[in-house]
Amino acid sequence: MEKNISSAVIKRLPRYYRYLGGLLDNGISRISSKDLSEKMNLTASQIRQDLNNFGCFGQQGYGYNVELLYEEIRKILGLDKTYNMIIIGTGNIGQALLNYINYQKRGYNFVGVFDKNPKLIGLNIRGIEIRDVDTLDDFLKSEKVDIAVLTLPGNNAESLIDIIVNNGVRGIWNFSHLPIKPPENVVIENVHLTDSLMQLTYKLTEHERG
Amino acid sequence: MEKNISSAVIKRLPRYYRYLGGLLDNGISRISSKDLSEKMNLTASQIRQDLNNFGCFGQQGYGYNVELLYEEIRKILGLDKTYNMIIIGTGNIGQALLNYINYQKRGYNFVGVFDKNPKLIGLNIRGIEIRDVDTLDDFLKSEKVDIAVLTLPGNNAESLIDIIVNNGVRGIWNFSHLPIKPPENVVIENVHLTDSLMQLTYKLTEHERG
Repeated sequence: MEKNISSAVIKRLPRYYRYLGGLLDNGISRISSKDLSEKMNLTASQIRQDLNNFGCFGQQGYGYNVELLYEEIRKILGLDKTYNMIIIGTGNIGQALLNYINYQKRGYNFVGVFDKNPKLIGLNIRGIEIRDVDTLDDFLKSEKVDIAVLTLPGNNAESLIDIIVNNGVRGIWNFSHLPIKPPENVVIENVHLTDSLMQLTYKLTEHERG
Repeated sequence: MEKNISSAVIKRLPRYYRYLGGLLDNGISRISSKDLSEKMNLTASQIRQDLNNFGCFGQQGYGYNVELLYEEIRKILGLDKTYNMIIIGTGNIGQALLNYINYQKRGYNFVGVFDKNPKLIGLNIRGIEIRDVDTLDDFLKSEKVDIAVLTLPGNNAESLIDIIVNNGVRGIWNFSHLPIKPPENVVIENVHLTDSLMQLTYKLTEHERG
């Protein structure tokens, strides 16, 4: 596997994955890079370049085998494995993520949900009991957790990072707006919902400029 | 203004904007491209290239004037204007977006909130009354709305697109997973929260491969 794949390519992979999954659902077994490019709003040569990065070559005159390509991208994205996850913070975003049923299908396993609000501790969300965040350290010592999802305010998140990282959690999906410098062996993905709104207003402004 | 700025550059602009805003909040008035690059995890030459796209040149030996650069990026992102927005769908994501108070500060004005659930219609969220989605057409005919935020299930969103687009809404921030082909004069930004989770699992997998 070649290294140094550009982050722009990596950002497109989930789109390929989603789109190919849709084709499979509709019983479509092959697609030309031209068709794929039109549907995905990329050039055909960009698609060939993107996929060549990962050793996925379309066949001249045939195009791509949708299922093979889907499975390959699935592996590249690490979705052929399962991940034990916890959510810390059961506000709107935390609940939205939990409710999003697609998770289970893709190998995301919620094994724990935490909050610090005494009114919420002990309640159930989708069959998972909300635990006291003060018990996080004990929990992580007894359960293998791969990914921690931070959906609590940034100032509350800060004190938890050490607990999370010291207990072998390898990935942090961070909605908390806390700038986290994780240790080298921990991967972090920060989500700023308003970034995409800013891209929308950028495009609106570009439109007006003509 | 040069055209054909790559989408990778545009995707980085909100990060520059957020980061520079943080510097301003901390009273920092200038920064070298080297410092900026270390903090933002980009190369100094990448930062110079990015910002040159928009005519923002650092001064040799001085670096960037933080406030000027912040203001310039603010304009480029269209954040020097105000936007009237509506939210359609008051589930977890809709509520999370509404609650995110930063909005007001940046010129995002929520002028209407809609749902189809009779139990919710008439209730207030942050001082805004939830309206019946059946009144959307009338509402849009009497109020100027720039951006519609779709936070309802895809199959419910479909029938609303024509109403939104025909009433002069220019931007759609789409959380609904409905693949929308908007007319040429309408800009759309699709949000797939799980895309960033897939990037996290990609990086975890890369880490393991070494």
